[in-house]
Formats: sequence, C-alpha cells, structure tokens
Amino acid sequence: MVSDENVGDVGRLGERGPADHRTRLQLLDEAESHFRHYGYTKTTVADLARAIDVSPAYVYRFFDSKQAIGEAVCAKTLGQICSSLQAIEAEPLSASERLRRIYRTMVARGLELYFSERRLHDIVVAAIDGHWGSVRGYLDNLQALVRRIVVAGRESGEFERKTPLDDLCAAIFCTLKPFGHPILLEQTDRDTLQADAEQVANLVLRSLAP
Amino acid sequence: MVSDENVGDVGRLGERGPADHRTRLQLLDEAESHFRHYGYTKTTVADLARAIDVSPAYVYRFFDSKQAIGEAVCAKTLGQICSSLQAIEAEPLSASERLRRIYRTMVARGLELYFSERRLHDIVVAAIDGHWGSVRGYLDNLQALVRRIVVAGRESGEFERKTPLDDLCAAIFCTLKPFGHPILLEQTDRDTLQADAEQVANLVLRSLAP
Repeated sequence: MVSDENVGDVGRLGERGPADHRTRLQLLDEAESHFRHYGYTKTTVADLARAIDVSPAYVYRFFDSKQAIGEAVCAKTLGQICSSLQAIEAEPLSASERLRRIYRTMVARGLELYFSERRLHDIVVAAIDGHWGSVRGYLDNLQALVRRIVVAGRESGEFERKTPLDDLCAAIFCTLKPFGHPILLEQTDRDTLQADAEQVANLVLRSLAP
Repeated sequence: MVSDENVGDVGRLGERGPADHRTRLQLLDEAESHFRHYGYTKTTVADLARAIDVSPAYVYRFFDSKQAIGEAVCAKTLGQICSSLQAIEAEPLSASERLRRIYRTMVARGLELYFSERRLHDIVVAAIDGHWGSVRGYLDNLQALVRRIVVAGRESGEFERKTPLDDLCAAIFCTLKPFGHPILLEQTDRDTLQADAEQVANLVLRSLAP
C-alpha cells in the first residue's frame, strides 16, 4: 500500500531544497524502506546517508532532522489513506452511502496498515503523540471531506437541515475517532471494529434523517 | 477523589486472603499513595512492604504480584468513576437527560483524573494496554448502564423502538469512547472535548427520536 506516489496535500514541514530533487526522492524511498523494516526509532540519519552513499551532512540539506524525514513518510502514509477516503466522493453514490463508506474504508485501511505495515502504523502513533503537522493535515482533509458529504446530502434533501452545520460535522467527526485512531484500532478486536463501524454509521444516518 | 471506599464490582483478580484483612487495606492505601506520588512503574513491592513494616513475602500473602496491587488500585479508581456515572440513574431525569449526563460526566471525571491525578490516569492507561480485568469490569458496567437507560427511554416512549437493541447500544457505546479513553483525553484540548461531548450527545439523541 505504500507504492502509490500520492502524498495528498499534507505539508512538507522541515523539508528543504527542491521537492523533486533526485536525492530527496531516493532518501524518502530509503527512509520508508528502513522505517518499515527496522522501525523509525532504530533508524538513524547516518543509516540513511550510508544507504544512498552520501554524507549525513548532505541529508541535512534536504531535511532539518530525522523527524522531518519521519514526517514526510508519515504524510505519505496518511495521504494514501486520505486518497482512499476522498475517492469515495467520486463514486456515483448517495450522500448516505458515501458517509457509510467513510466508516468502512477508515476501518479497512487502518487495519491494513496495522496488520501489514506495523512499523508505519507505529510512525503514525508517534506522529499523533508528537503533534506532527502530517496528522493535522490528514485530520483537516478528513473533516473537510465529511463536511462536503453532509452539505451535499442537505442539498439533495437526504439529510435534515436544522442542526447547525459546524456542530453536526464536529459530532460526526468524533464518532469516526474510534475507527481512525491507531491506538483504538490496536485495542479493539478486528471483527468487533468492523461491526461497530456499521452500527455507528447507521446511528449517524438515523440522526441525519430529515 | 480517591478517598471514597466504593470500588464498585470490578473484580479482585490476583488478590488473596480475606478482603477486609487490616493489612490488606493498609497495603492498598499505601499502594495508592505510592502510585500517586511515584507512579506505578517506580514503586516496588519491597517499597510497599517497607512502608507498612512487613516483609515482601508477607505482601504476597495478599496479592499475587505488583500487577495485582495495581489492578486493585485501578479497580478502585475506575469504580469511583463508575459510581459517578451510575448515580445519574438515581436522579429524577428523563432518559434523554440521563444519556446526556453520561457524556458530560465521563469527560468531567476523565479530565479530573488526568489533570489532578496524572499517575492514577497512567495506571488506567497501563491497565488498558495490558488488558487488566479492572478495565473489562468498568466497561461491562458502563455498557450495562447505557443499556438500562436506553431500555427505560424506550419504555417511556422517549426513544424509538425499531432499531435492534444490541446494535443500538453497541453504537452508543462506541460514541462514548472518544470521551472515556484516557489516551484520547490526553490528546484532545479540554474545551474541545467538552463541546464535542455535548454535540455527540445531541447527535445520539436525535438518532433516538421516535
């Protein structure tokens, strides 16, 4: 799931130099591969420099710190989940069905990351803990997506229009947390999580009935 | 908040000997005080034994392990939160208002623990991570409470009766997670958390309208 080049628009905090510089891309590929195999904590900037045959000082021409490299890899990982969620909007579905798919896709992609790419999942956990910008970017995109779907559902007459939009969207966003937060994904049984996501989507949709 | 002796019915896993034995109670008081001051990790069974002037071997007559002592302190902490939540049922309120208070009380007590008793909060985090029985007991009590309120609301005609009760209760329980899970409490701004709890309660109550 990490071959896709779409990193969304989740920022490039602490990155330097032209984004398309060959060394920068090489570094990111190498970082992703190191983080996936050895974990973020055990990988050093020196390891990455050695892997692409440059000096650590040269690495710092592109990234402020190891965290900036971690941020970039995390942004890519979250950007891919974000793309899966945003793709729901392009499908010919009702607003209700789109909202339902948000819950379903979030659980599916979250579990995929946890079970298949545990060390990337761990980077996301560290990113949340450390308030990295990549997480904020992801959450902003998710909130905007939910809002667009709710607005579309109101316009088409599928959803009620009485509740203030901000309050409603904030509430829906909260109900998504148990299915998107990596720590809660870790702590909940897989089958329960999928069943719960369906039931919460149903509850939210009942609350949205005009 | 930890002076209340009500530990609810959240189990006594790994505990030995008569529950009311004076040494056992002394040990628990000392453990709570040590955990609150030095943290669970930094406290040893030898520290506790020394504090009440007995041998470590004597401590093991009452508790299997340090974790069993941690369990008992955690059970007491969670038991107190549980009692606050269960007290809502005794008040002369509508089912809707009771449900709303569950969200509000959960946030209030969770934040109180986090801001005033950080080290007890940390024990709860460790307890969730380690699948301690005290957490399961608390969650079971909470689920039962939510179910009783929903059933009462259905009987009084306040809530719709079409949705299968199990599905509905599972969904409501999930919507409480962002307000009860200690890690999410840590990661969310205090004011946002309180406002979000109100909005999620409103959303759930709209979904319950007959």
